[in-house]
Amino acid sequence: MAEIDKDIVLIANRGEIALRIIRACRRLGLRAVCAYSEGDRGAAYLDLADQAICVGPAPAMNSYLNIPALLAAADATGAGFIHPGYGFLSESPEFAEAVRDAGLTLIGPSADVMRMMGDKVQAKRAMMTAGVPCVPGPDSVLSGDLPEISRVAEEIGYPVILKAAGGGGGRGMRMVRQQSELRDAYMVTRQEAQRFFGNPGIYMEKFLERPRHVEIQVIADSHGNALWLGDRDCSMQRRHQKMIEEAPAPGIDRDHIAEIGARCAESCREIGYTGAGTFEFLYEDGQFYFIEMNTRIQVEHPVTEMVTGLDIVALQIDVARGGQLPYSQAQIHSIGHAIECRINAEDPDSFAPSPGRITAMHVPGGPGIRMDSHVCAGEAIPASYDSMIGKVIAHGRNRAEALARARSALSEMRIEGVASNLPLHRELLADPGFREGGVSIHHLENWLAAREKSDG
Amino acid sequence: MAEIDKDIVLIANRGEIALRIIRACRRLGLRAVCAYSEGDRGAAYLDLADQAICVGPAPAMNSYLNIPALLAAADATGAGFIHPGYGFLSESPEFAEAVRDAGLTLIGPSADVMRMMGDKVQAKRAMMTAGVPCVPGPDSVLSGDLPEISRVAEEIGYPVILKAAGGGGGRGMRMVRQQSELRDAYMVTRQEAQRFFGNPGIYMEKFLERPRHVEIQVIADSHGNALWLGDRDCSMQRRHQKMIEEAPAPGIDRDHIAEIGARCAESCREIGYTGAGTFEFLYEDGQFYFIEMNTRIQVEHPVTEMVTGLDIVALQIDVARGGQLPYSQAQIHSIGHAIECRINAEDPDSFAPSPGRITAMHVPGGPGIRMDSHVCAGEAIPASYDSMIGKVIAHGRNRAEALARARSALSEMRIEGVASNLPLHRELLADPGFREGGVSIHHLENWLAAREKSDG
Repeated sequence: MAEIDKDIVLIANRGEIALRIIRACRRLGLRAVCAYSEGDRGAAYLDLADQAICVGPAPAMNSYLNIPALLAAADATGAGFIHPGYGFLSESPEFAEAVRDAGLTLIGPSADVMRMMGDKVQAKRAMMTAGVPCVPGPDSVLSGDLPEISRVAEEIGYPVILKAAGGGGGRGMRMVRQQSELRDAYMVTRQEAQRFFGNPGIYMEKFLERPRHVEIQVIADSHGNALWLGDRDCSMQRRHQKMIEEAPAPGIDRDHIAEIGARCAESCREIGYTGAGTFEFLYEDGQFYFIEMNTRIQVEHPVTEMVTGLDIVALQIDVARGGQLPYSQAQIHSIGHAIECRINAEDPDSFAPSPGRITAMHVPGGPGIRMDSHVCAGEAIPASYDSMIGKVIAHGRNRAEALARARSALSEMRIEGVASNLPLHRELLADPGFREGGVSIHHLENWLAAREKSDG
Repeated sequence: MAEIDKDIVLIANRGEIALRIIRACRRLGLRAVCAYSEGDRGAAYLDLADQAICVGPAPAMNSYLNIPALLAAADATGAGFIHPGYGFLSESPEFAEAVRDAGLTLIGPSADVMRMMGDKVQAKRAMMTAGVPCVPGPDSVLSGDLPEISRVAEEIGYPVILKAAGGGGGRGMRMVRQQSELRDAYMVTRQEAQRFFGNPGIYMEKFLERPRHVEIQVIADSHGNALWLGDRDCSMQRRHQKMIEEAPAPGIDRDHIAEIGARCAESCREIGYTGAGTFEFLYEDGQFYFIEMNTRIQVEHPVTEMVTGLDIVALQIDVARGGQLPYSQAQIHSIGHAIECRINAEDPDSFAPSPGRITAMHVPGGPGIRMDSHVCAGEAIPASYDSMIGKVIAHGRNRAEALARARSALSEMRIEGVASNLPLHRELLADPGFREGGVSIHHLENWLAAREKSDG
């Protein structure tokens, strides 16, 4: 067993976020050890780490989700810290506990806070206590008594939505338009909740018809300081997968956002949150409604970095190492506008992943353009993992300029050897609805349906 | 002969600045036609242009400096505009006239203004009239009468410097410490001036012992509007070749810079300047001394883009197309700090160019990092042209952060197949003198001499 070294970070993740964490480690003068699966052996981004260590074969269950293998890798390399990135084990209280029990530090909040936020009903209760606005509905799971459930639905007013307390990311929920549908919907959702999340608890909320997805980035240290770093609009989604994100959210009163942001930071202090996190809201008719908190770094963090100038991943690592946040809230300024497009290797029509080897790739550049990608020509997009090639991020002095820069960056970019959603992104950035700003979370799917119809 | 198209720009340059101009054209929705020499045939950046057209063999005299061939290329492709980039024909009044006479528009100032600024004595006179501070010394060429020259030197006070009126870029000048050296120095400088610049005129100025190189970026439209876009410090030079540039210049009173900047913008209005330009100054003991104006885009323009958020090349094209500057001076803000390192393919000890094929290349990225480069793995750095691989530009909320980001970017970057000055840049960014900021134009050469001595 190696000595634990406070200057070594094990990265329990892969691809672009692994490279992003390597960069943050380099920036802080720390050693980055990259855990990798056999499916990623030989990947170019691993050469940029100070060390790479194999933690098992693909699929992820045997490697990136394999807690004993990851702890063994930390032990073998002397890493004192583990960065879980996003996805995989990043929101696993069990992993957080195992890391702590091994005498190491997870770069993220405590297992207790993670567990509380993972239970949507508990999370909602904590938010209501902290004065964060929530979707109308009781802050407890439903009783199981159908007449009682029906009474709750009447009180809220149809349409309502049933959600698994242990769910998240858009799974385990069902909308109910009228009382006659309620009983069946409840039964099916309950079964799914048990099956998918091992928790049959169901809660009910008002269903919002055409909301936007707006979120608040926060960061908190272990000395009681918490900051909100601005907002993002991630309404351009397909099947709950974000495709385009931007900061700030267009057309929302800045004072209102500031009030919500301040409440998010305050609730971090109240629940003892540490690290980076995101409060996700639905926004409709000028009101914010908390839906869930992500207790990790998010894919779309670069848009916030572009407008604030901050390095959120470096801040994450800093506060995990016991550092105090080096800014006050008054020192956080958002300048201009940023837009991120997630470029995936996928069939442009079916959205099926299109793994394979990239034969040629040209990355866009110039003023205001940032590309976060772990691959280049010659590299493979493996079939075992998500199909992300990278993220194109454009910053401008205002939204119109950010959009124009994003469009020229996408027009410049070249990917050969795998199919990608680059052509789709080019179309979406030209869509009048998106260009106007403030579309609902249904906009992209409606747009796709309309396109399919006109093609057919 | 094709019809002249106002939406087609011929790029009369190569390498990174050609790609930079392609990006600006794309941003503005214009077609970019790239002129190339046989030495650049097959270069990857040419694929990013809408069209590429060969203008002759290397060396540049037969292609990038071949005015008839460039005009023929514009004619064949219907280009209405020609962007000369930097170097090559970018400051040639003859080219500007030939472009105008062909009924086309050069993206740059008029031939007359170019000619005035190319004559250092005329330029100095114009600056003195506009209230821009100049190096002490008469605003006319020396008479040729030695006792009179000696009297002028006594009046200025030794040491003085003799400069060719037609010179620039550090050539054709000679420092004189005492009267006994004056006669010989005058004779030799005069011969060189005639030989190198075809103009035997010599003028005399006070020699500054340990100045810094500080410059002001300007942009002016054809409607009488002129803005200054901030300052840069480019003191890290070797043999008058800039290696590292930054914005803003550290440790100089901002009100003083603003006063000088306003005078530069005012003098643009007075002389009828249009396009982008740079007023170069020496700065010593709290005083600015104008030395020359570059009537073109400069290599180091990205540091100004990073702190202002502007796209200076797009603005250049806009104003050449008759557009009005879309900002007032009050809307130009400099935020944070930016540092640029010029990465060249050269021997790290002898500084001799190291042309060849790049076998592997990893470009740095992440928050605040921009890389302007026209090459990637598999591409050649030809022997016929300058040896630039690209420029790494880092932006941070302050100078310390920009430096830290630049250092981690350079630590991440990889170039194989050709020798480069990457290791030297890594050392320079760690140098305590540079880190403190405000070094003189002799610092880099002194540092290199000291290193050589300690190595020997």
